[in-house]
Amino acid sequence: MADNQIKTRGTMFVFSGPSGGGKSSVIKRVLQEVKDIKISISVTTRDKREGEVEGEDYYFVSDKKFKQMIKDDAFYEYVDSDFGSNYGTPKEPINKMLAAGQDVILDLDYPGVQQLRSLAGDRVKAIFLMPPSLKILRERLVNRGTDSAEVIERRMSMAEKRINESVFYDYVVVNDILDNAVEEVKAIVIASRVEQKNLVGLDKMIKRVMKDK
Amino acid sequence: MADNQIKTRGTMFVFSGPSGGGKSSVIKRVLQEVKDIKISISVTTRDKREGEVEGEDYYFVSDKKFKQMIKDDAFYEYVDSDFGSNYGTPKEPINKMLAAGQDVILDLDYPGVQQLRSLAGDRVKAIFLMPPSLKILRERLVNRGTDSAEVIERRMSMAEKRINESVFYDYVVVNDILDNAVEEVKAIVIASRVEQKNLVGLDKMIKRVMKDK
Repeated sequence: MADNQIKTRGTMFVFSGPSGGGKSSVIKRVLQEVKDIKISISVTTRDKREGEVEGEDYYFVSDKKFKQMIKDDAFYEYVDSDFGSNYGTPKEPINKMLAAGQDVILDLDYPGVQQLRSLAGDRVKAIFLMPPSLKILRERLVNRGTDSAEVIERRMSMAEKRINESVFYDYVVVNDILDNAVEEVKAIVIASRVEQKNLVGLDKMIKRVMKDK
Repeated sequence: MADNQIKTRGTMFVFSGPSGGGKSSVIKRVLQEVKDIKISISVTTRDKREGEVEGEDYYFVSDKKFKQMIKDDAFYEYVDSDFGSNYGTPKEPINKMLAAGQDVILDLDYPGVQQLRSLAGDRVKAIFLMPPSLKILRERLVNRGTDSAEVIERRMSMAEKRINESVFYDYVVVNDILDNAVEEVKAIVIASRVEQKNLVGLDKMIKRVMKDK
């Protein structure tokens, strides 16, 4: 029946949500459980940390190279982080994946979503992962044990800003029970693949269906 | 956690596809396996057949009553069938279900989809169930054993017309393997429920999330 498969064009699924909201856990599960979907690797100017792998965790580049990439229009989006290093989403690897009919996951904040939409709006579905409450978010940040009290406070105040931006997203998924959130995100991806506008060669498929009388 | 549930507004999922394409089987499974979704009951002027139940299979009405309902703007859509009787989709029961946050399934051909879209386009998702091939479609019609050879020929020629209309649908689901088709339709429904535009009271939800610090 391979002949009856409709080819779909890839979609960029952008995830946003406050730190500690469980975004990484959801993304990890979706990457494991859904086929033909990969994560976008960002470009960064920050130093490689121990254990990080070039081209797996990030593409590590110099400030000069980063500036050149901006000039060359090589980014779908780039943002300055809170901590001074630069991060960007390179167009080329994503375009290759999309052209091969693969979906791509991105993890961006709202300014990145806006840039991405302005460049490739019809290929983007933006998903906001909503924490059940600020209280639970704070508990998760504290239990994670990776941030100082000061950083936690900064993350909490960023979280309020992010949560107010949720109204600008295509989808809002509440991450209360991880399994439910994962199921909803998987549904978004699967539904996207049978969207008529994402079916390349529907006309050819119609011809095949008609031909086999 | 009930307090954290976002209320969604209902969506009308309209299914089209040629006779014998397995539409009824898919719809039956979705009604069994997804909660908060019901099928729309049509109004008809044809006689009640043995075993049919008023308000379950159809609302049976007189020609006069049907004409009055058209005048009263009481239909989302109505079409003349091939066989002379009239059928229509009454607005009132659907509006009640949608207002209660329930999704509604409709089984209509493309003219019905067009009427529905013109009246309530933003509440409608139209799904075309594509048979794997005309050959398989014919086999299914023959095996079903309910239609004369003449009726089968008519259905086959209608099928070609319908399949060409698939490009006008929001989603195209190939009904090759029933389980896959059902899974894709369920994904469409679940994804629709976390679409930001279908979340009523997202603003209230944001306030709740913020309040519980």
